[in-house]
Amino acid sequence: MVLDSNSLSKFGFIERGPKDFINIDPLQTGGKLTPEAQKALKEWGDGYSICDFCPGSLDIIKQPPIKDFIHEALPEFLGVDGARITNGAREAKFAVMHSIANEGDCVVVDGLAHYSSIVAAQRARLNIESVEHNGNPDYYIDPEAYGRAIEKVISESGKPPALALLTYPDGNYGNLPDAKKIASICHEYDVPLLLNCAYSAGRMPINAKEIGADFISVSGHKSMASSGPIGIVGVNGDYVDTVFRKSPTHPVKEIEFLGCTARGATIMTMIASFPAVVERIKHWDEEVANARWFSEKLEGLGLIQVGDKPHNHDLMFFEAPVFYEISQKVKKGRYFLYKELKARRIHGIKAGLTKYFKLSTFGVDKEDLSYIVDSFEEIIDKYQDKF
Amino acid sequence: MVLDSNSLSKFGFIERGPKDFINIDPLQTGGKLTPEAQKALKEWGDGYSICDFCPGSLDIIKQPPIKDFIHEALPEFLGVDGARITNGAREAKFAVMHSIANEGDCVVVDGLAHYSSIVAAQRARLNIESVEHNGNPDYYIDPEAYGRAIEKVISESGKPPALALLTYPDGNYGNLPDAKKIASICHEYDVPLLLNCAYSAGRMPINAKEIGADFISVSGHKSMASSGPIGIVGVNGDYVDTVFRKSPTHPVKEIEFLGCTARGATIMTMIASFPAVVERIKHWDEEVANARWFSEKLEGLGLIQVGDKPHNHDLMFFEAPVFYEISQKVKKGRYFLYKELKARRIHGIKAGLTKYFKLSTFGVDKEDLSYIVDSFEEIIDKYQDKF
Repeated sequence: MVLDSNSLSKFGFIERGPKDFINIDPLQTGGKLTPEAQKALKEWGDGYSICDFCPGSLDIIKQPPIKDFIHEALPEFLGVDGARITNGAREAKFAVMHSIANEGDCVVVDGLAHYSSIVAAQRARLNIESVEHNGNPDYYIDPEAYGRAIEKVISESGKPPALALLTYPDGNYGNLPDAKKIASICHEYDVPLLLNCAYSAGRMPINAKEIGADFISVSGHKSMASSGPIGIVGVNGDYVDTVFRKSPTHPVKEIEFLGCTARGATIMTMIASFPAVVERIKHWDEEVANARWFSEKLEGLGLIQVGDKPHNHDLMFFEAPVFYEISQKVKKGRYFLYKELKARRIHGIKAGLTKYFKLSTFGVDKEDLSYIVDSFEEIIDKYQDKF
Repeated sequence: MVLDSNSLSKFGFIERGPKDFINIDPLQTGGKLTPEAQKALKEWGDGYSICDFCPGSLDIIKQPPIKDFIHEALPEFLGVDGARITNGAREAKFAVMHSIANEGDCVVVDGLAHYSSIVAAQRARLNIESVEHNGNPDYYIDPEAYGRAIEKVISESGKPPALALLTYPDGNYGNLPDAKKIASICHEYDVPLLLNCAYSAGRMPINAKEIGADFISVSGHKSMASSGPIGIVGVNGDYVDTVFRKSPTHPVKEIEFLGCTARGATIMTMIASFPAVVERIKHWDEEVANARWFSEKLEGLGLIQVGDKPHNHDLMFFEAPVFYEISQKVKKGRYFLYKELKARRIHGIKAGLTKYFKLSTFGVDKEDLSYIVDSFEEIIDKYQDKF
């Protein structure tokens, strides 16, 4: 590519197509900015703006009040002894794995884990032992399966895994396993537990200490109404000294975070949204009620919600034989559903999917949820009349 | 901290104090957003907005045109075979070190390196051999010193270092060493060279291939008019396969980047500013002329610019005995200069510094530079009249 005015014309400012649509993309419902965060983004957009008065490290910046946020508010919010900002939940998971495990160690991971948990373990050069689930339709994880996986690692490698990880909830079915029980089983073997709360912290109340988790990973852009990339790592007990260890040559800089992480506007959006996030998790029961109502309505149209039932989270997975059948017959094939929803200004079900798909009802009000249900019904009727 | 309305009131939207000041903070002059980037930030601010049409990995997103940007525009712009977006220059350096070196290997690093290069090596558990410079006032790095450092590593460890790193320019004095010569010396020993261009790429023309660098690290929020955290890693030759290696279990995901890095508005600000950045590096000679003019004027006031002279970069380090003497006598002590500059709406010299400080003239127009010179003179006159 020659960088001339012709080739460069495709860059510059670009509009975002679906920005005013009703959004049910599980990746996006918890990351929509609050009005305060939108303002913060504009105010702090310039590179390194938060470093106007830097005393040497991100987590000790007093003005803006990043120090109070990281050292006071976040530990209280998440139930951890120490918290740091990361560039996302995956970076939080890698930071934990890289600092507490050695190359060649094993990590036990639930079979529903997000790919980034697996890739983080691969980057840290760890071996992975998967914890089974019971498959379709429940995708249930028996807490005892963690004990079996740990024992397998011990019998094969002669030592316990360095870490266990539980995705809470998983990103496909929105299942919330019995994390407390799993933590307790892991601790029987002295294996610490990392709880990946990318889809929970910031949407629902999460307290790592009450659950018994040693580590927690959080996503700002997924669930804390923040502009990404940004996340949080929370650490309990003695692990604080390991994960937050400082450079021997640069005593104010923490090695695992390369000194500073979210050195930009991203953290100011997280701080801006924080009061609203603290408030919204108090209404989690309403979110669950909405999700259950929505699931019931869709099942009434012939779809099947798999995973925990009744469901306990806004992220849900549906099998949709009715849409799949239509896709087999219509001209536009598997893209018909995406196009029909787009025409109705509904965004978030991946283009090309009809047989099954996931979605999220988080933060979508009852009126919009009803509109989505009506739209699904309308689309089914439209095509069923045709054949 | 109890999270009640009282304690939460310090969070939410927060104003940025010095946002409308003339800014000469070296960290910030190259990271000021273009109008296009400001618009992009607003448009793409929501978490995961760029993933509206994700095909599985950040670098292959077609809409917005991230794929073309990463695979076509950036390699051309930086003179590399492959480029990827990182969360910053430090993350780029860590990615290179972590992927090409093994724990316990040695990396040779210039003695003027940014702390994050050292901390990245510590995170990758590498040993560090420092390359000497000749100290005050030139801080000159003799290219042959790289050969000597490499030979020292060979004689002590029995094998060559895994990597050499050169900071280009360094972040204190703004010196631009003979990178081409250093690359050639490193290659005599088969040692690859990583050029840290956090303060150059996006301000001045940089072509890694012409220099002979195997790797390049770039900072979006420092030098590419981007909202952080964001950077670029550029890779040449066979190292592409190593640094960009894919997950054995998730073949579309690159391990070293945990799948995706800048999964938010940050990359849209980089893309938005890119045409302006391509344009501005064509005017680098004017920036250098401005820096030299400014340096001359300040020396006329009794300050001493150290480092390369005549200077070749906007980042400059000054010794200021005249301000130091004043600070010894006035009531406000070492904060007097900061306060005087603040009153004149000039930001960027660290509060408390008078004896020496660094600053940057990048993107500051001649009128504002003259105003700063006049302000310095006014402050000197004001206090010299007093004693």
